[in-house]
Amino acid sequence: MRRLAVLLGLSLALVDSAAAQAAVSAAAADDSLKVEILADRLDHPWGLAFLPDGRMLVSERGGTLLLLSADGRKRETVAGVPAVASGGQGGLLDVAVDPDFADNRRVFLSYVGADRAGRRGTEVLRAELSGNALTDSRVIFRLEPKTNSTRHFGSRLVFGPDETLFITLGDRGDKDRAQDLNDHAGSLIRINTDGSVPDDNPFVNQAGRRAAIFSYGHRNIQGAALHPQSGQLWLHEHGPQGGDELNIARAGRNYGWPVITYGVNYGIGTQIGEGTAKAGMEQPLYYWVPSIAPSGMTFYSGDLFPRWRGDLFVGSLKFRTLVRLSLNGTQVIAEERLLSEQLGRIRDVVQGPDGALYVLTDEARGVLARLSPQ
Amino acid sequence: MRRLAVLLGLSLALVDSAAAQAAVSAAAADDSLKVEILADRLDHPWGLAFLPDGRMLVSERGGTLLLLSADGRKRETVAGVPAVASGGQGGLLDVAVDPDFADNRRVFLSYVGADRAGRRGTEVLRAELSGNALTDSRVIFRLEPKTNSTRHFGSRLVFGPDETLFITLGDRGDKDRAQDLNDHAGSLIRINTDGSVPDDNPFVNQAGRRAAIFSYGHRNIQGAALHPQSGQLWLHEHGPQGGDELNIARAGRNYGWPVITYGVNYGIGTQIGEGTAKAGMEQPLYYWVPSIAPSGMTFYSGDLFPRWRGDLFVGSLKFRTLVRLSLNGTQVIAEERLLSEQLGRIRDVVQGPDGALYVLTDEARGVLARLSPQ
Repeated sequence: MRRLAVLLGLSLALVDSAAAQAAVSAAAADDSLKVEILADRLDHPWGLAFLPDGRMLVSERGGTLLLLSADGRKRETVAGVPAVASGGQGGLLDVAVDPDFADNRRVFLSYVGADRAGRRGTEVLRAELSGNALTDSRVIFRLEPKTNSTRHFGSRLVFGPDETLFITLGDRGDKDRAQDLNDHAGSLIRINTDGSVPDDNPFVNQAGRRAAIFSYGHRNIQGAALHPQSGQLWLHEHGPQGGDELNIARAGRNYGWPVITYGVNYGIGTQIGEGTAKAGMEQPLYYWVPSIAPSGMTFYSGDLFPRWRGDLFVGSLKFRTLVRLSLNGTQVIAEERLLSEQLGRIRDVVQGPDGALYVLTDEARGVLARLSPQ
Repeated sequence: MRRLAVLLGLSLALVDSAAAQAAVSAAAADDSLKVEILADRLDHPWGLAFLPDGRMLVSERGGTLLLLSADGRKRETVAGVPAVASGGQGGLLDVAVDPDFADNRRVFLSYVGADRAGRRGTEVLRAELSGNALTDSRVIFRLEPKTNSTRHFGSRLVFGPDETLFITLGDRGDKDRAQDLNDHAGSLIRINTDGSVPDDNPFVNQAGRRAAIFSYGHRNIQGAALHPQSGQLWLHEHGPQGGDELNIARAGRNYGWPVITYGVNYGIGTQIGEGTAKAGMEQPLYYWVPSIAPSGMTFYSGDLFPRWRGDLFVGSLKFRTLVRLSLNGTQVIAEERLLSEQLGRIRDVVQGPDGALYVLTDEARGVLARLSPQ
């Protein structure tokens, strides 16, 4: 019996290895990506988050939050979503599920709020999901000061390893705000989930500086993800014409916009700021010229695509493609573009609990698609 | 008078700065690259080298060496080129001009030579250019052993900072040769220009190893350039299906082919070798999936494109594009593709003495084009 068991173990190992190799081959060959449309007729979907039971929350920019079954076939509209100021680049933006959701049922929404005069700013709501309704809602962050522009709101929501919450923002279309530490615009925010500011934020108790700011000099951040090994937050941001950047967020650092950038002014193509590098300002890990218009970001750590483990995926609105970045530590060593023109403007990319990649397309009839090896 | 001179100096400085800024803007904006066709009806041109007086030598794969005037309008056929074994990927390949050409009139050609049985291998000829003829020709390198395959010959010729000559090769379509140190195939060669082997080559006086080999484990190297600051030789090589690599050549190092690669087998898409990384084998600085089929390489150090200074340019046969890699030290921080589909398969790219970029297209009616800001 012992010998039989050993033989069986061996043969199972061989089968596993063959299966793994087949998966690798499928993933690497052309046209080998299986694309399933789980849900269509989504109205400019923006953010996607999984509940522990496999169901999904999908935000639509116009202000609707949907609760989808794990196979995407059933959808309910979640009640209790705040009124959002949609229009331009704003509306209902990201959705995130608390790491302790199983205990606290909390979800978080980022969206554009407006005051009575129509001045707008990114806000973050915390609420409990009860059935298909949000209850016990509370606004835990408001971008200050609000302005009339409908551009550059960010935003993504990512939990830090210490259960703080990162909120990515934009410069609100007014570039000099990104260098002003007394202004939330153009920065990365870090708060506790009750809205208070962590004691170890870099600008805490500094006069004329907003304590919630973690890093600044950002133009418009619409993708962020925690590195699965280092626990650091990686970000990308939209450049002007060219100069979209990939960065690692470090406390108190200045990412240079609009003083340094690899981009130029739209249309006229004139230089912006002082050039591409300056002492005291961070260089990007990687940048894109021309702009890909990045949105959404996830590190891949699943089993379905063993060859892509450790890679970083970024959605591209402009080129309607999913960008795969191969990494060697913090160095990008290859860029591949998948799904070119196949689905539409990619707004978000998330790894599902099954190890598949899920993408949302930013279209009037957008889709939720599941990507797996063919 | 002194005050006037100062004012004049200031106004000139302002003019220069405005002109420089205009050039930057033009270079960065879309459609801003001025493309002049200096010569057309070239038959699969392969290599381009400038003489000190601005004239150009252009090799054609079929076996013709052309001498072009600086404006490309006059062309002469150079006499005395050796018989080459053209066919498949072989024929007359690269051409290089000795750094001391003004004194010694020497030029170097790489090409495919065949023995009486039709077995082929890359060879390098040194000759003097007298008027429009090669004289005092001497073969200074022969790939050994020769075989019947018509694939993967390399090759580029680049002078090291110490006036040694680097010759890039391919694995001759027989991948295991790249790991055999008693076989030139699949290696980078370093010799003196008289054909002798430098004393400081890594495998000198080692039994069963070829002394001319500088590095190995290469699949097919068709681009190489000396870094203008570090003096190191940068290389790119064709991968199989995916996995084209960018590397820095270091003495005695193993670049992994075919044991490690980011590519897969053509068509069937099955894995090659053991994976993508292994102890004792080099990781690429950057790689391409899917393959771009790189050919030709130059670092830009001119004044016409100030924003591109320090960048690395690589021709792409497959995507008919000129790839610009932005560097931060030895790290690639951006990839841009220029001229997409505009000219054809780009076989070589060289910076001219005027700071413009010159490219050759690998077509039956190929062109020599000059790129400058619009």
